[in-house]
Order: sequence, then C-alpha cells, then structure tokens
Amino acid sequence: MSTPSADTAAGPAPKGRATRRRGDALTRAIYLTTLTELAETSFEELGFDRIASRTGTGKASLYRRWATPAELVMDALTDPVSGFGEPAKPETGALRTDLLVLLRGLARALDEPHGRALRPLMTQRSRHPELYERVRALILRPRQELLLSLLRAAADRGEVRPAAVTDRVAAVGPRLVVAEQMDTGAVSAADVEAIVDEVLMPLISTAPGR
Amino acid sequence: MSTPSADTAAGPAPKGRATRRRGDALTRAIYLTTLTELAETSFEELGFDRIASRTGTGKASLYRRWATPAELVMDALTDPVSGFGEPAKPETGALRTDLLVLLRGLARALDEPHGRALRPLMTQRSRHPELYERVRALILRPRQELLLSLLRAAADRGEVRPAAVTDRVAAVGPRLVVAEQMDTGAVSAADVEAIVDEVLMPLISTAPGR
Repeated sequence: MSTPSADTAAGPAPKGRATRRRGDALTRAIYLTTLTELAETSFEELGFDRIASRTGTGKASLYRRWATPAELVMDALTDPVSGFGEPAKPETGALRTDLLVLLRGLARALDEPHGRALRPLMTQRSRHPELYERVRALILRPRQELLLSLLRAAADRGEVRPAAVTDRVAAVGPRLVVAEQMDTGAVSAADVEAIVDEVLMPLISTAPGR
Repeated sequence: MSTPSADTAAGPAPKGRATRRRGDALTRAIYLTTLTELAETSFEELGFDRIASRTGTGKASLYRRWATPAELVMDALTDPVSGFGEPAKPETGALRTDLLVLLRGLARALDEPHGRALRPLMTQRSRHPELYERVRALILRPRQELLLSLLRAAADRGEVRPAAVTDRVAAVGPRLVVAEQMDTGAVSAADVEAIVDEVLMPLISTAPGR
C-alpha cells in the first residue's frame, strides 16, 4: 500500500485554495475516480491523466504515490472504504441466513464502483495476468475461504452433506451471483434468495423432502 | 445476414492476383479475423481498418457488406462454421452423458475465437446493450432452451426432480463453465466432469444416496 499522507507532504499547497482536499479525503476521491473510470471503460483506457483531471488534482501527485495505474487500482480495490477490504464473516448461526447475508453483500458490491471495476479485470485477465492474480489472491480467495469455512461448520452440525464441502461447491453461489449480474445487469434480493433456495440449499443440504 | 457473394460481385478483380480469396473463403477469413481481434482487444478497439489489413483485403469490401462493425460481429458470431450456429441436441438418452456432451461443447467453444469473442461483449454489455441483446437472443437463449428441454425430458423419465426444471437451474451448468473459464483461463474435461458430478447431478437428480 502507498502512504496516504504522501500527497499533503508533497510541497506547499497554494494558500488560497481552501477547498483543496487533503489526505484521506483526496485519497478516497482518487480511489473512487479510478474505480469508476475502470468500470466504465477498460484497464487499457485507464490513465493518470484522466484520473487526475476527473478528480481535480495534479497528475504529479498521482505519480508521487503510485508507480503505475495497476498499483493505484490494487490500492483502490483493497481499500476498506472505497474497495473490498476484508470479508466479514456472517454470524447468524443458520446456514441459509449466512448464505443470504454473504451473497446479498456480494450482489451489492457488484453494483458499486469497486465491484463493477472487477469486471474488465476478470474478463481481460489474459492481457493482465499479474494484476488478475493479485485480484484473485487479495479479493476473491479470502471470500472463497470464508464460504468454505461456513460449509464446513454446517457440515459439522449435520446441516450440510460432507461431500459438498469442496472448493467447487463453495464457489457455486458467488459464481451464480456474478453470472446473474453479467447476464441481466442487476442482482435483486429475490435473485439472491432464488439462488440460495433453488440451487444452493438443494445442492448442499442434508434435509429430506427435496 | 449479409450476402456472402457480395464481395466477388463488387467489380472486376485484378487478373494477376491469383491468390486473392473469393466468396466463402474470404468471408470466413474476415469472420475469423473479426472474432480474433475482438477476443484479443475489446469492441471499442475493433475497426474495419484493422480487420481489413489483418485479413489482407480492402476496407471498401467490408463497407460494402456491413454497415458497422457490430453487423460484422453478429454475422461472424452466428456463422455455423466460424461462429456458434445452431445448438446441436445431444441424443445419448442418458441425462449425465447429455450434460457432459453439452458442457464439453461449451467449454471447447469458449476456447475458440468465437467463444473468446463473447467475453468482451458480455462484460461490457452496458456499453453496447443492443449488441448484447442480440447475442443473448441468437446465441445464449437457444442453448438455454435446449438445456431446459433436456431437464424436462429427464424429469418425465423420473431422473430429475420436477422442482429442478427451471430456467435458473438449467443455467447453472453453462454459468459454472463460463465462470471456470474466467477464473482459471481454461476448462478441462475433468472440470466439466466435476461440474456435472459434484454440482449438477446432486442438485437435480432424484437418485438417492447423496
């Protein structure tokens, strides 16, 4: 991660410009511009020039803090406010509700700038394999691990078939939410509930009466 | 669809250029270039200039046949040789084998130019909603209908839970194959088999012993 205070330390600011944003506020504005630009265009089209002018800051202040747009993108994507941060473990204690909470969170994120910014990266991964690997390791993998741990705990309680505690099964819910978003452009609360009740629960549950 | 013979009819060809491709061969070469370019870049970057020079033909011959790159892309994507054509119904009579045949076909297609060309269109759909709707109607929807009809027939034979004969369940297999391709860059025969045996069959099957 870069140093959030680097911009304010970079020389005297003109005294008259009281509206100039500093520190965290400027950093978050840069992150939001970066994610929005990426979501609207592609990684190829992303440049410090346009991010700087759209944020209303100088290009030099971006170069001082990030060597490349890829560095800036990763900082923006992993930021706890503008980006994904750490995944939060749902603690409802009931598998179905845990799944609903997790997948609703994913559906919401996909509709925000950081979620929409993932799409060009995921589909153009062959053009930017290193960037994609970092997205995978820092954003996708921790969420996959969390889901797997929920399945494992539910299997220990007897709610889930032990054979369903696999990486592939844990990936089904997130993959279907992402696919719904890509196919229809939006994932409603009803979509998430249908994914859980029509697909996930019949797939993983030990409950009879399917 | 455009007229495949339009190019050869477009004025006298120089007599000395015996290697100049005509008719179908040229059309297929144009389609392949278009799909490969689209797969490697994005719809924004696609232009008649580059397609013409990469195919080794004149830009004017493209303009005579297609009003826009979008028209050319749709003709290339739906062509039965270079593109998707009509979906072929597997007739093995066994649900698991039918699913394997269908999803293996999808996995193979995703690794060919016409399959790779779908990715930028699917992820940038908000930039090109009309183009995406045509892809959906002409390519995705017929395959979805085919899968649903397989599920319905298997439910009639008692192999599939009637509650699993839904659009959402029919979409699970293709969506997981596409997700696997996006996440890992390739879908192996073992991946397809795991999707069928670890996810689809436990989800849809009436067979006991899960």
